[in-house]
Amino acid sequence: MMNQRGRFITLEGGEGVGKSTNVSFVAEWLEAQGLDVVLTREPGGTERGEAIRALLLDPAPQEPLHVDAELLLMFAARAQHLAEKILPALARGAWVVCDRFTDATFAYQGGGRGIASERIAVLEKFVQQGLSPDLTLLLDMPQEAAKQRLESRLRDRHEQRDRFEQEQADFFQAVREAYLARATEAPERFAVIDAQYALEEVQTQISQALTARVAAWR
Amino acid sequence: MMNQRGRFITLEGGEGVGKSTNVSFVAEWLEAQGLDVVLTREPGGTERGEAIRALLLDPAPQEPLHVDAELLLMFAARAQHLAEKILPALARGAWVVCDRFTDATFAYQGGGRGIASERIAVLEKFVQQGLSPDLTLLLDMPQEAAKQRLESRLRDRHEQRDRFEQEQADFFQAVREAYLARATEAPERFAVIDAQYALEEVQTQISQALTARVAAWR
Repeated sequence: MMNQRGRFITLEGGEGVGKSTNVSFVAEWLEAQGLDVVLTREPGGTERGEAIRALLLDPAPQEPLHVDAELLLMFAARAQHLAEKILPALARGAWVVCDRFTDATFAYQGGGRGIASERIAVLEKFVQQGLSPDLTLLLDMPQEAAKQRLESRLRDRHEQRDRFEQEQADFFQAVREAYLARATEAPERFAVIDAQYALEEVQTQISQALTARVAAWR
Repeated sequence: MMNQRGRFITLEGGEGVGKSTNVSFVAEWLEAQGLDVVLTREPGGTERGEAIRALLLDPAPQEPLHVDAELLLMFAARAQHLAEKILPALARGAWVVCDRFTDATFAYQGGGRGIASERIAVLEKFVQQGLSPDLTLLLDMPQEAAKQRLESRLRDRHEQRDRFEQEQADFFQAVREAYLARATEAPERFAVIDAQYALEEVQTQISQALTARVAAWR
């Protein structure tokens, strides 16, 4: 028998770890089990949230974005996303698969920008009021390998780097370390996926993590 | 002898009370005293903040903006405004005159939207870390008179109503009451200006409030 409330699964990881490809894989894998799946992403996920995302990622403005303003914009988009999309989907029993969520805020604005975790936790509590993902798949790989993948993607697609992609190696190293620290603090919620292998091997790891949870939850 | 740190003066009030006209009057009055004045407004005040303001005021999107998202966007713009403009101006000794600040958040998102003051205070503390205006001029008038002035302005300038101006009478009444409650709680900071009289009379009241403070502060 299915659970009444749906499940909330997030995919996390730095630039170049293969998140976009694998978030679709997760959604398709769950759909193949006959589950009602909502695939979404942060920052964004709603009309309002995507407008905020554009402000956050735009590399063009002359004026630097203050770290607290960046953090508050992330949570503004998240409040809209929760109210408009995530909570209604979970309430009707759908499984929500989200490309990044609050762990990314602790990793990027915390680890990367240096905002104290305690300050981020104030906003997490304010916006989420206790909601947390049921499972977080963290795609992890050594920084040098992720950097090469990001550069190859940008080159292949002729894309401009967004505000975050323009950061330097020490920023990405701090993001990675903050993600791994989050995983260590909540081992029951996290599945750390070693993403440096070939796609097929990575997706085998993801399937195994999903199989174990889905069996327990259905 | 001048104070080293500048002073922070805010102008508050609902739609149609004559804020735009009088905020310029305040800035000119202070400049006439030989003071270094920075005139600014919220939400907005910076390149990034004005982009957030556009999201907040845009009446067009189909998707309603969630109250918490609105509140967080207000404080995101405020964090940017403080870091980029207000704090540097105060630090160099300038007098900052701001068209709306956090009292507006308590009035609109608190009184108008019904967010508990305690929740707003969490974000106020997060962003302002103790900073508060030195003087707040609250332009107050009966709701019916303010409504007529707003309608006449929109008609004369062929302006479309923004998201806030589209609200109904009970919203504006709640905003007014929340503003007056704020003034009652902090009588030493607030000067309540009876704005239903002719402009000259209103500006006489403003001059008197400024004269008393400026004499004490210089």
